[in-house]
Amino acid sequence: MFVTFEGLDFSGKSTQVKLLAEYFKSTGANVEIIREPGGTAISEEIRNILLDNKYSEMEVETELLLFSASRVQSVKERIAPYLNKNITVISDRFHDSSIAYQGYGRGVPLDFLIPLQKFAIQNAVPDITFFIDIPIDEVLSRKSKLKVEDVDRIESAESHFYERVRDGYLLLCEEEKRFRIINGLLSIEQIHKIIVKEIESLINE
Amino acid sequence: MFVTFEGLDFSGKSTQVKLLAEYFKSTGANVEIIREPGGTAISEEIRNILLDNKYSEMEVETELLLFSASRVQSVKERIAPYLNKNITVISDRFHDSSIAYQGYGRGVPLDFLIPLQKFAIQNAVPDITFFIDIPIDEVLSRKSKLKVEDVDRIESAESHFYERVRDGYLLLCEEEKRFRIINGLLSIEQIHKIIVKEIESLINE
Repeated sequence: MFVTFEGLDFSGKSTQVKLLAEYFKSTGANVEIIREPGGTAISEEIRNILLDNKYSEMEVETELLLFSASRVQSVKERIAPYLNKNITVISDRFHDSSIAYQGYGRGVPLDFLIPLQKFAIQNAVPDITFFIDIPIDEVLSRKSKLKVEDVDRIESAESHFYERVRDGYLLLCEEEKRFRIINGLLSIEQIHKIIVKEIESLINE
Repeated sequence: MFVTFEGLDFSGKSTQVKLLAEYFKSTGANVEIIREPGGTAISEEIRNILLDNKYSEMEVETELLLFSASRVQSVKERIAPYLNKNITVISDRFHDSSIAYQGYGRGVPLDFLIPLQKFAIQNAVPDITFFIDIPIDEVLSRKSKLKVEDVDRIESAESHFYERVRDGYLLLCEEEKRFRIINGLLSIEQIHKIIVKEIESLINE
């Protein structure tokens, strides 16, 4: 089974990835976690370029192609071989992040972006994708460690960007059956329980 | 004016790039040379990953996306701004290399590769492209420093790969008016003279 987690920054994805991996292990399943970008020696090198603060001149097109390069390497070198061996893979972000962030968020045309992501993931389409949804104010508040009610002090440009990304995710959730929308304001334990239920019901199908 | 040079390895492109840049300077034109992959801080970082021998596990898809990432950064950060300021740009390889090498050579589908290259070059289509054509035996001979007649000792797989790349270039030359095929077995001076004549006739048009 191939499970991906999506959501805005600070939505709590990584915590849920770890909890779900522990759940799978407790059932006796083999499970591997992938973090994006990264996961292979080459992908980690690409990650270093993507996250290096000194490259503020990086264009959105460059960023998109670097994420996609890292992704295809990780798919061919790790994800596809794991899935072929019936190892469960959980990825913290995957191709939907590029569609939401670089497409809906930054305006890269979808008629190019979608074929690019098909190429990047090869045939590794996730079986189920959890979109952990939190309101924009909550993202900005968690990011700045401000109280939610003080968030309007933060640049509105950033808030508009996150709104476009969230709207993009919500459109993807409508279009693709594999998505499950999870209320990210629930407690860590509540969210984990909902996720496990969804996984169990998918297995029973 | 935007001039690109294409050809198999060891065809003598880089020498001709330098000579043509000197010619432009002698006419009083401003000229900038771009080497691919590279040309910006980010592109050079990507170049380091692409050329690092320790990454033998790199997939052809990853390679293609890294070349394209480097290219789009170089287009937006350097080539497009130069052309907007009427500075002549000469590039040692450009998008045709990806079509010939990763497309015709390594089998990446052209119906994905061509839109990808359009995205990578944005609107920076070369005005003229010189394809310096040398026979495959000559490539392998120059590469191994063997005599041409001893070249059959070299793996035929490599020779087949170069044949596919050369055939791809020749197809591009038929399809796109901007190409000029130059016989790469001529002397450096002869080739340079032909190139200058082509440039002058393009300017006169």
